[in-house]
Amino acid sequence: MAFDMNLVQRGARLRRSPFFEATQRHGAKAYTVYNHMLFPICFSDLEEEYWHLLNHVTLWDVAVERQVEITGPDAFAFTNLLTPRDLARCAVGQGKYVVITSKDGGIINDPVLLRLGENHFWLALADSDVLLWARGAALNSGLRVKIREPDVSPVQIQGPKAREVVHALFGERVLQLRYYYFLETSLDGIPVVVTRTGWSGEVGYEIYLRDGSRGDELWERIMEAGKPHHIRPTGPSDIRRIEAGILNWGADMTLENNVYEVGLERLVDDDKPAGYIGREALKRIKAAGVTRRLAGIEIAGERIEFNATPWPVKAGDEPAGRVTSAIWSPRLKKNIGYAMLRAIAVAPGTALKVLIPGAGERPAKVVPRPFVDPKKKIPKS
Amino acid sequence: MAFDMNLVQRGARLRRSPFFEATQRHGAKAYTVYNHMLFPICFSDLEEEYWHLLNHVTLWDVAVERQVEITGPDAFAFTNLLTPRDLARCAVGQGKYVVITSKDGGIINDPVLLRLGENHFWLALADSDVLLWARGAALNSGLRVKIREPDVSPVQIQGPKAREVVHALFGERVLQLRYYYFLETSLDGIPVVVTRTGWSGEVGYEIYLRDGSRGDELWERIMEAGKPHHIRPTGPSDIRRIEAGILNWGADMTLENNVYEVGLERLVDDDKPAGYIGREALKRIKAAGVTRRLAGIEIAGERIEFNATPWPVKAGDEPAGRVTSAIWSPRLKKNIGYAMLRAIAVAPGTALKVLIPGAGERPAKVVPRPFVDPKKKIPKS
Repeated sequence: MAFDMNLVQRGARLRRSPFFEATQRHGAKAYTVYNHMLFPICFSDLEEEYWHLLNHVTLWDVAVERQVEITGPDAFAFTNLLTPRDLARCAVGQGKYVVITSKDGGIINDPVLLRLGENHFWLALADSDVLLWARGAALNSGLRVKIREPDVSPVQIQGPKAREVVHALFGERVLQLRYYYFLETSLDGIPVVVTRTGWSGEVGYEIYLRDGSRGDELWERIMEAGKPHHIRPTGPSDIRRIEAGILNWGADMTLENNVYEVGLERLVDDDKPAGYIGREALKRIKAAGVTRRLAGIEIAGERIEFNATPWPVKAGDEPAGRVTSAIWSPRLKKNIGYAMLRAIAVAPGTALKVLIPGAGERPAKVVPRPFVDPKKKIPKS
Repeated sequence: MAFDMNLVQRGARLRRSPFFEATQRHGAKAYTVYNHMLFPICFSDLEEEYWHLLNHVTLWDVAVERQVEITGPDAFAFTNLLTPRDLARCAVGQGKYVVITSKDGGIINDPVLLRLGENHFWLALADSDVLLWARGAALNSGLRVKIREPDVSPVQIQGPKAREVVHALFGERVLQLRYYYFLETSLDGIPVVVTRTGWSGEVGYEIYLRDGSRGDELWERIMEAGKPHHIRPTGPSDIRRIEAGILNWGADMTLENNVYEVGLERLVDDDKPAGYIGREALKRIKAAGVTRRLAGIEIAGERIEFNATPWPVKAGDEPAGRVTSAIWSPRLKKNIGYAMLRAIAVAPGTALKVLIPGAGERPAKVVPRPFVDPKKKIPKS
């Protein structure tokens, strides 16, 4: 099924990234839409890009990770209201992977939060309008905050050679960055923030561009620095992120789920002194226990095709839930993924059946996550 | 530039409409993404679909108009807080075109609001997460409301034969519906709401399906009833909506604009007794006057190609603003559209220049909206 970009684009409604021209020039073949913006997800072939990520280094236009910026005299107090993590433990210069929770405990988004100052925060968002949520929550809060979308657009540099590339760009001190820390700097006068983060399970960095007019320049500067390391523009790798146990908001978790269902309970600081939105609900849910959970699964048989809808799952002859993500792992030589399952069906080893629309039923089983243990060597080719 | 659906789709993240299978079966050729859902926007050719809309009747899958449902003992008071229109003047059984405003007066969304009961409202949304905004706004409001996305998915039936089609489906009483009124009914047991609304400037109705499992059935029932009138599935017509003076949220207006800038001041009831979010800001803006306004424009010369980015506009040699929508009108035989312009450049007749990337500068001028006067006969072929 082929799509014409003029049609997919539909007028000037969908936004373009500051790197859009560069991604066109470098041969982006497919875009999706994310946070009202075009998102390049493939430049050659998904498996080829996966191997390149494993063996070399890749550059992704993830400007779709739109930022919400929270500033003002009460920015710390307000931002600390939005998440179950205790931001008192987040230093200036540090980031945290957090969930933004609704009053009923549902997951509104799972951004990387950066603390740029005592009262200065960015949330690098998954695909939902947290700008509207935060502004709504601020209305009667009595807190003095300014909430806006700043001119900030990240790229990711991911893969075993990512260190060499950022070293060439930013020098020695970028190598000192601990996981989830960042530094504010510039490159040929282009203002950026460099973070030791990523969505791949490989070594990786993100460069947050702070001046949208200089996207093309930054892109080419990175490509040049990465040339000796065979850098290539690619989309994020769905294969690699599933192997790594990383979840995709909108598929593996939505507003209808809470952290206990999807295995993100580590993002709740039970001893957080300050209150936050969703605290009572999460306490209640934790005490009562959940009735469904997201499990790792393996689906037997040959390579499955891309899953575009949540495939039904059975345990015995009983409906047990739905597959939320599934993909063929070329190095594990298995079909792996996640399924949201009734709590009685989530023990590792549980035998399942997955109904693939148009392709019939396949045996499957529950397995531990992640699929690729970061401490275990697995052949990369 | 061609896109592969498996790539555009990107896993099970993007939602599918209850009519998705039907749109595939009927040959949808292009989808965009809107409210996190795939939106079929073309089945054959945009101009062919336009002529069909003018002369016959068309069926659109607009399930992407996701609903926010507000119920609970304080639903009226709360919903009335969200918009500058006075909902005391909206009867049960009536709808209103409204704007949802932020505290600074920005336009969060421009839904059709339906009042299903004293304390029961639906907002049929443009492409932003009003569910999150409304939940945020409810947090400390002290009002007892339930806010959710119900299982409701509209289709539009638009075109001069739309009356005949809904007559065949629902009988005499649907013809009594006044503009923006609705009735709750069923079709072969399929629960629906039928409204006298639409996004075309032609005669039109929307059928809101209230049971997502019956999308395919409803679709085929409508196609069957429309057969004598040559009904065809199409996308919404960007050409026809621009001719009619209808705006597209995300392109012609965004969160950065207010009603006074885009000519929607009729959606503010200055004498509304109840307060609402954004009231103080809108009062201030009205008193001070705006510095930019959305104007109708004609762009000289031959047929322009689809505009995918906001083209720069000059008045004389001064930057004057940006084109937000532009398209070739086959019956006016002109390029028409909207531009957000500095207030000094919006008087009808003002000479402009439009810079079309890759195609150079074109003369243009400001013209009154709408382009097609509903009271004036214009040849339809």
